[in-house]
Amino acid sequence: MSSLQGFTVPRTATGRASITQPPPWHYVGDFLVVDYWADPDAVLAVLPEGLEPHPDAGRCAAVCADWQSCSEGGEELLDPVRSHYREYFIVINALLDGEEVTTCPFIWVDQDFALARGWIQGFPKKLGEIWMTRTFGTSLTADPGLRPGARHGATCSANGRAMSDMTLTIEGESEGGPKHNDPPIVNMRYFPRLTAGRHDEPQVHELVRAVSRDREVSKVMTGPATLNLYPAPGEEHHTLAPVEVDRGYRLTFGYTVDDLEVVKDFA
Amino acid sequence: MSSLQGFTVPRTATGRASITQPPPWHYVGDFLVVDYWADPDAVLAVLPEGLEPHPDAGRCAAVCADWQSCSEGGEELLDPVRSHYREYFIVINALLDGEEVTTCPFIWVDQDFALARGWIQGFPKKLGEIWMTRTFGTSLTADPGLRPGARHGATCSANGRAMSDMTLTIEGESEGGPKHNDPPIVNMRYFPRLTAGRHDEPQVHELVRAVSRDREVSKVMTGPATLNLYPAPGEEHHTLAPVEVDRGYRLTFGYTVDDLEVVKDFA
Amino acid sequence: MSSLQGFTVPRTATGRASITQPPPWHYVGDFLVVDYWADPDAVLAVLPEGLEPHPDAGRCAAVCADWQSCSEGGEELLDPVRSHYREYFIVINALLDGEEVTTCPFIWVDQDFALARGWIQGFPKKLGEIWMTRTFGTSLTADPGLRPGARHGATCSANGRAMSDMTLTIEGESEGGPKHNDPPIVNMRYFPRLTAGRHDEPQVHELVRAVSRDREVSKVMTGPATLNLYPAPGEEHHTLAPVEVDRGYRLTFGYTVDDLEVVKDFA
Amino acid sequence: MSSLQGFTVPRTATGRASITQPPPWHYVGDFLVVDYWADPDAVLAVLPEGLEPHPDAGRCAAVCADWQSCSEGGEELLDPVRSHYREYFIVINALLDGEEVTTCPFIWVDQDFALARGWIQGFPKKLGEIWMTRTFGTSLTADPGLRPGARHGATCSANGRAMSDMTLTIEGESEGGPKHNDPPIVNMRYFPRLTAGRHDEPQVHELVRAVSRDREVSKVMTGPATLNLYPAPGEEHHTLAPVEVDRGYRLTFGYTVDDLEVVKDFA
Repeated sequence: MSSLQGFTVPRTATGRASITQPPPWHYVGDFLVVDYWADPDAVLAVLPEGLEPHPDAGRCAAVCADWQSCSEGGEELLDPVRSHYREYFIVINALLDGEEVTTCPFIWVDQDFALARGWIQGFPKKLGEIWMTRTFGTSLTADPGLRPGARHGATCSANGRAMSDMTLTIEGESEGGPKHNDPPIVNMRYFPRLTAGRHDEPQVHELVRAVSRDREVSKVMTGPATLNLYPAPGEEHHTLAPVEVDRGYRLTFGYTVDDLEVVKDFA
Repeated sequence: MSSLQGFTVPRTATGRASITQPPPWHYVGDFLVVDYWADPDAVLAVLPEGLEPHPDAGRCAAVCADWQSCSEGGEELLDPVRSHYREYFIVINALLDGEEVTTCPFIWVDQDFALARGWIQGFPKKLGEIWMTRTFGTSLTADPGLRPGARHGATCSANGRAMSDMTLTIEGESEGGPKHNDPPIVNMRYFPRLTAGRHDEPQVHELVRAVSRDREVSKVMTGPATLNLYPAPGEEHHTLAPVEVDRGYRLTFGYTVDDLEVVKDFA
Repeated sequence: MSSLQGFTVPRTATGRASITQPPPWHYVGDFLVVDYWADPDAVLAVLPEGLEPHPDAGRCAAVCADWQSCSEGGEELLDPVRSHYREYFIVINALLDGEEVTTCPFIWVDQDFALARGWIQGFPKKLGEIWMTRTFGTSLTADPGLRPGARHGATCSANGRAMSDMTLTIEGESEGGPKHNDPPIVNMRYFPRLTAGRHDEPQVHELVRAVSRDREVSKVMTGPATLNLYPAPGEEHHTLAPVEVDRGYRLTFGYTVDDLEVVKDFA
Repeated sequence: MSSLQGFTVPRTATGRASITQPPPWHYVGDFLVVDYWADPDAVLAVLPEGLEPHPDAGRCAAVCADWQSCSEGGEELLDPVRSHYREYFIVINALLDGEEVTTCPFIWVDQDFALARGWIQGFPKKLGEIWMTRTFGTSLTADPGLRPGARHGATCSANGRAMSDMTLTIEGESEGGPKHNDPPIVNMRYFPRLTAGRHDEPQVHELVRAVSRDREVSKVMTGPATLNLYPAPGEEHHTLAPVEVDRGYRLTFGYTVDDLEVVKDFA
């Protein structure tokens, strides 16, 4: 009989058509991060089952990442339509058994393979369009670089509506990097049933802790930042709009993912 | 504690940000269908667990659909970026406990909400760009209409590569409609684990039979057809390229979906 | 020597690579139109050279069109990625030598061949994403149809920002159709110089009157409408936001274009 | 009366809605370049009026550029959807009054503002999707870097069809950089008439030489390369497919453009 292969659908005799190749997944990307605080009640309203509120109520970060990724062997790097993607997300801060963690309530990404990997990791990814200022290592007018005074921006839209934008004006190097985005990330994997009468009984519903290895981070630049979250039909991220903005950060970062720790199973 | 709502991620206090609203899902669309036969070995190579080969080995259909859909209340119809989508797929014919069925090994769709609904129904959806000739009910040169001699085409691409194209030249009305796409559809729902050592132990792996209601179909036009399936990196649908093409069909069809029957659970 | 062919760039030995094939261009499309009035000063501020203000100051219409088009022979109809496009535009009303005319200050379109044809006709086209509710001739829930009570919507975005949206609730058939979009359209063709010191001396700068033939229009449905125009970076159409909305219209229309009348040359 | 402003359409009282802001335009980008030879007859077949064949018949280059650009003041850099774009083009080599020059017969770009600037400069731009491997300055698996052995790729598609792909395997630093892309570029500005009977009498038809200033180039890496050009409906670039491939190059480059020299006027 059949023995179809593939880490995800579509599954075939070889597995090569899978929407994403099997782990390990190797990543590198440029990041803009804005540490901020939202309305504490709005943060509570998206806190997943199994997590406790953070004592610094309302603590959040907004993150834009311009990624390049590949599976083992790296063949996607030569075919960049299958390795590039950009994403934009919010994390809220919380506690898991007393430990500081982050969790991601809203995220947009611009490629299907990244959406699939996200769902598998517990990131609630939708499709969007994400843009982020780049640097090129030159002194040209069109290259802001990472020097003091350099200004960087990022935007996210979905369905032709603005979701969010952020800016950073670099003042200098940061010693510690972003604080609100620093704790380990714990997400909720969720996959529903369609069988009549069981729409509220998900088949997958488990709190998971991200696991990664082979991490490398560049030096981190920091400075004053702005952040806006906009309302739109079918979206709720704007409930996490900033009431206070801390600092912004620009860095390059990467790692490898081929594991995930299940913390609690609710299914 | 938290009690997040939503049929899918992202889940919130209200559920309004879910990538797709809960069933029922109401659909209407224009269709081009080409009945054909592929290499029987290639069809066998994508036959899911739990299905037996069809006695008419190699029997397939290619389908392009230009959809409009909504959830209960229909608010998406007023905001067509959230109701329109186009999809392009292949079905192979098979047997389930001796009954003729179809199953979908490859499918592309151009919106995230449709990709999510597809995964939940067992359609192995990837993102693509799909185009299909339209009619407008006029006698204008740019409107081929449904008259004898009218020519219709559809194309599907993904990652900037051609996946498939089809054409139909209408001869007249069909009495029975497409044959290779007619049997009930049985798909495989599949959602993997990322936990190290368990990448081959999917959490969701079940054969499911589509259930629908409130179906309506227009009269069906038919005539000679062409079909091409093209190879591309990371794709395998071209293994199902036609060795013989039967007829093409043009119809309008719709239904409502809010149920799914689990046939066999492999998880 | 060389004798390159082609109605537009890129020009080659055969002309087949031209971004748009030569006229005649045959069109058919579905339309949503909203007649309205903007701030008269804002309308004056975008009135082109050579036109006089309309006595009904501020008279405008917003139009969404879901087009299918082809050149002579109609080969694009079989390859719909080269025949479909959607556009969204504003017209203001004006006078030309005492005659009522319309002129288009802002327009977005979603395909390059349509952008090129637009520039050649004097439409100041930018790229955008446009969506419009469809009908399918069924009684299905997802098909609003053209019956009284049916609600239709359209949206336009550019650069991931909302430009405009409109809705229509059909009450019944209209006798005369849209009024603010009815007069002949007169646009400004404009193509600048890049030579230093001559950036303000356009090479093409002429008022042109659209010419068409072989027109066909469906019956027209009408009812109350809504219209919003939104501000966005690098855009100014929101200056024409409605101060009063008249009626909305839904129709199907088509024609053939292969001529253009030059009214005044400013170059 | 009216005095509309703006370097291009749409023109308004302020000029801010223009599809591209006025020059100077500041650019910086990463480049992949492949020097190669096409069939000399195919090169002749796209040689513009006013240029003579190059003695090294068939000499061409294929170029992919991942750009960031802005106008004076640089506000687009903070809003990267208005500053990023990618383009992919072919140049052929030719002679102008005995001097070696290049000229661009085919080019694709992914943003409207870049398409408009291209037409104004004489680049025959169409819309496409372009992807190119990136570097991040790390030693991560997903970052090929610029070290010997690093492999880079680029692809171009249009209308969902593959136009071209190229790869480079870096061996080391190049002393002289690309040769086939080095001579000054001379293009044909062309803007047609639509008036009946005058479709073959373009209003703008002039050979122009690019002028730039404030150029900066990084060190250039080089190595063996591959290049493919694919046929597609409505395209002719595949006539310039390689008969021999020389070397590939990876560099970062930028300049400022606010001038253009008219060489010959054919209108």
